[in-house]
Amino acid sequence: MQQLKDKKIVIVGLGLIGGSVARALAELDAGCEIVALGRREEVLRQAITEGSITSYTTDTEVACADADLIILAVPVLSIEAQLRLIAPALREDTIVTDVASVKHTVVQAAINVFGAVPATFVPGHPIAGSEQSGYGAARADLFRGRKVILTPLDHTLPEATGEVRTLWELIGAQVLEMPVGRHDEVLAATSHLPHLLAYALVDTLSQQGEREEIFRYAAGGFRDFTRIASSDPVMWRDIFLANGAATVRILDEFMSDLQDLREVVLREDGEQLFKVFTRAKASREKFLALLEQSKTK
Amino acid sequence: MQQLKDKKIVIVGLGLIGGSVARALAELDAGCEIVALGRREEVLRQAITEGSITSYTTDTEVACADADLIILAVPVLSIEAQLRLIAPALREDTIVTDVASVKHTVVQAAINVFGAVPATFVPGHPIAGSEQSGYGAARADLFRGRKVILTPLDHTLPEATGEVRTLWELIGAQVLEMPVGRHDEVLAATSHLPHLLAYALVDTLSQQGEREEIFRYAAGGFRDFTRIASSDPVMWRDIFLANGAATVRILDEFMSDLQDLREVVLREDGEQLFKVFTRAKASREKFLALLEQSKTK
Repeated sequence: MQQLKDKKIVIVGLGLIGGSVARALAELDAGCEIVALGRREEVLRQAITEGSITSYTTDTEVACADADLIILAVPVLSIEAQLRLIAPALREDTIVTDVASVKHTVVQAAINVFGAVPATFVPGHPIAGSEQSGYGAARADLFRGRKVILTPLDHTLPEATGEVRTLWELIGAQVLEMPVGRHDEVLAATSHLPHLLAYALVDTLSQQGEREEIFRYAAGGFRDFTRIASSDPVMWRDIFLANGAATVRILDEFMSDLQDLREVVLREDGEQLFKVFTRAKASREKFLALLEQSKTK
Repeated sequence: MQQLKDKKIVIVGLGLIGGSVARALAELDAGCEIVALGRREEVLRQAITEGSITSYTTDTEVACADADLIILAVPVLSIEAQLRLIAPALREDTIVTDVASVKHTVVQAAINVFGAVPATFVPGHPIAGSEQSGYGAARADLFRGRKVILTPLDHTLPEATGEVRTLWELIGAQVLEMPVGRHDEVLAATSHLPHLLAYALVDTLSQQGEREEIFRYAAGGFRDFTRIASSDPVMWRDIFLANGAATVRILDEFMSDLQDLREVVLREDGEQLFKVFTRAKASREKFLALLEQSKTK
């Protein structure tokens, strides 16, 4: 683990993602210093006790002094405030990355704080969330076999991107790069829209007169389908505030398709229903095959 | 297992549900005769070899002669044709039940065939499907801890309902009764609508220009959310043809709520997003608690 030896890595925010990075790094025994910067001392003390961090502080300046790499693991709309706090303490070569689910907002936050995105700032997003949240749910193996998308800009230093890539790969992730806008569109379609639908469905059903009875007879498929509606409301409020435009674009396509399917149901067009369901089943099976394929790479 | 000793039980259709009933009964070693009536001899022969049925036939008259209990395990729109086939072979006291997902259609099928629903006919529905289908996916423990809803009519013989209840309880299910119309509404909300949404979402995404890339970056949440879009297209075509009205009613409520949520996203109303997400998360947690509670009963 030569790559991280003697480095000072600062994790800002010790929730599910930040905590899992800490636990994964600690398990690696990479010889690096892992400093947590957070607000809840109870959680920070727990992390010290468990050995998943080497020290903690609630003082930004102390945390960031001489940091080699700072990982911002806070909800997307808190990134700007955190960047503003750490800005005075940054060395010129301190690398900064983040884990937020919407990248154009993070880029804009960096512009707002620094005037331009620093060449040492590497926007990133591990596709490894779950419906759980908080340090208590953090796991050393959360990123194993998962994808991390980095969205460096044209002027981002390749060495900075390389360091961030190395960190994620060391803790088991598969790192990919794509442009900021593409990331936000892809995530709107595959993550943000499904979350919106799951939240909306559970909310619709919970407003039914006999909701107790309705939920009582729901089966396993329903549980899987709505799992993501148990996700952290603060994190997801921020995501929809940040990526509302892209999400509404794909939502509108979906609602138009759903409206068509509603008409197909109403006119009892069995042939068309069969066609759509068969096509969807085939697409999903292709998707699963893609997932398997990328895992074994 | 005194209750089933020396009884002749006929399973019409050896797919996921029929096959699982057969395997569960065989595992019970209940001393009953299990006769499968099906079309695909390859599957029927496999079931014989495995010992999950005692005999099979493709001849309805042979199968139904002297049957004590007939379980129709075919898609909902095939029930009427099957009832018509078995009608001439039924003894007066042969109990008939089914496993279809829409009950008013099954009741109407019985009226069409017999003029009125026979007092020995007990409409039923095990809430135990999965995205898999076919005999190959059948499991002896499929019904363990799962709910089976029976929807007997006012004139259904209590003894007939009792026999069907006993069968399901012996293979591990928890049996509930409710009116036909209520069943179809509850299932429209908790099963049929989610399936429609999952099919529609996968279909929308699969029509995106860069669908390969979109699916490539999808995460575990997406896999869970869309699991039910891998369900059998024939079975689900039938369900939407049979329960279209109830499904469209709850779909319209959902679309109206979703439209509201779209406006909330567009006007960047973080407070309202947080409120809806928090409410949905709480509702889902209540639902999970209900599930746990009914399991331990």
